[in-house]
Amino acid sequence: MAETIPADYRDLLERPLFGHLATVRPDGKAQVNPMWFLFDGEMLRFTHTSKRQKYRNLMANPSFAMSIADPDSGYRYLEVRGVLDHVEPDPEGKFFVTLSERYGAGGQAPPDAADRVILVCRPTGSSTQ
Amino acid sequence: MAETIPADYRDLLERPLFGHLATVRPDGKAQVNPMWFLFDGEMLRFTHTSKRQKYRNLMANPSFAMSIADPDSGYRYLEVRGVLDHVEPDPEGKFFVTLSERYGAGGQAPPDAADRVILVCRPTGSSTQ
Repeated sequence: MAETIPADYRDLLERPLFGHLATVRPDGKAQVNPMWFLFDGEMLRFTHTSKRQKYRNLMANPSFAMSIADPDSGYRYLEVRGVLDHVEPDPEGKFFVTLSERYGAGGQAPPDAADRVILVCRPTGSSTQ
Repeated sequence: MAETIPADYRDLLERPLFGHLATVRPDGKAQVNPMWFLFDGEMLRFTHTSKRQKYRNLMANPSFAMSIADPDSGYRYLEVRGVLDHVEPDPEGKFFVTLSERYGAGGQAPPDAADRVILVCRPTGSSTQ
């Protein structure tokens, strides 16, 4: 992974910052939304549901890109590109709770827990500034 | 435009915030990078060059999406979707200077002024949280 994510930009994946996650819709148009994430050194994990547009996008086209700006240093940023590796069910919303705690948002299970999934995404490249 | 960009989210386009601009590469993969922008109430304008990947992306697929998070309110954000309307040459980098001043970055013309262009993008829809 040293080659995929430069070591001196890893902090942007370790801090509880929003990642702006870009996906491609089935009609070929771009979509981007801020997301919570967790990086384990190999995979990026996002909480999502199986009923929403981003899930449909990634089922049709597994490509993703995520942009993270350093709030403490205006022009420093990391873009991670890669592919959806697999989806894990999260029917009790446990991973949502993990992220909610990481981001200081309380740690309550979500009302849509039954539909919750974990998007497990594999970085394959990055760019930085 | 009242329908395209909700009035109570217009401030996110008026403040000098970074927009995370998503485009689609010619191979169908997603790309996203933080960008300076200016919104005139109708069009979004970005400074770019004709030699870079995002320019090639938008030439092949004019779709874009841009995500802006409110730094003062953690979960408030605006996503603007739309299409590249046209490209204007900016061979002296004047629009770069306009944006550089808007973002408090000094207002110097860039070294690559000769290749500078303005990406003029038309919003066609949005989502908010």
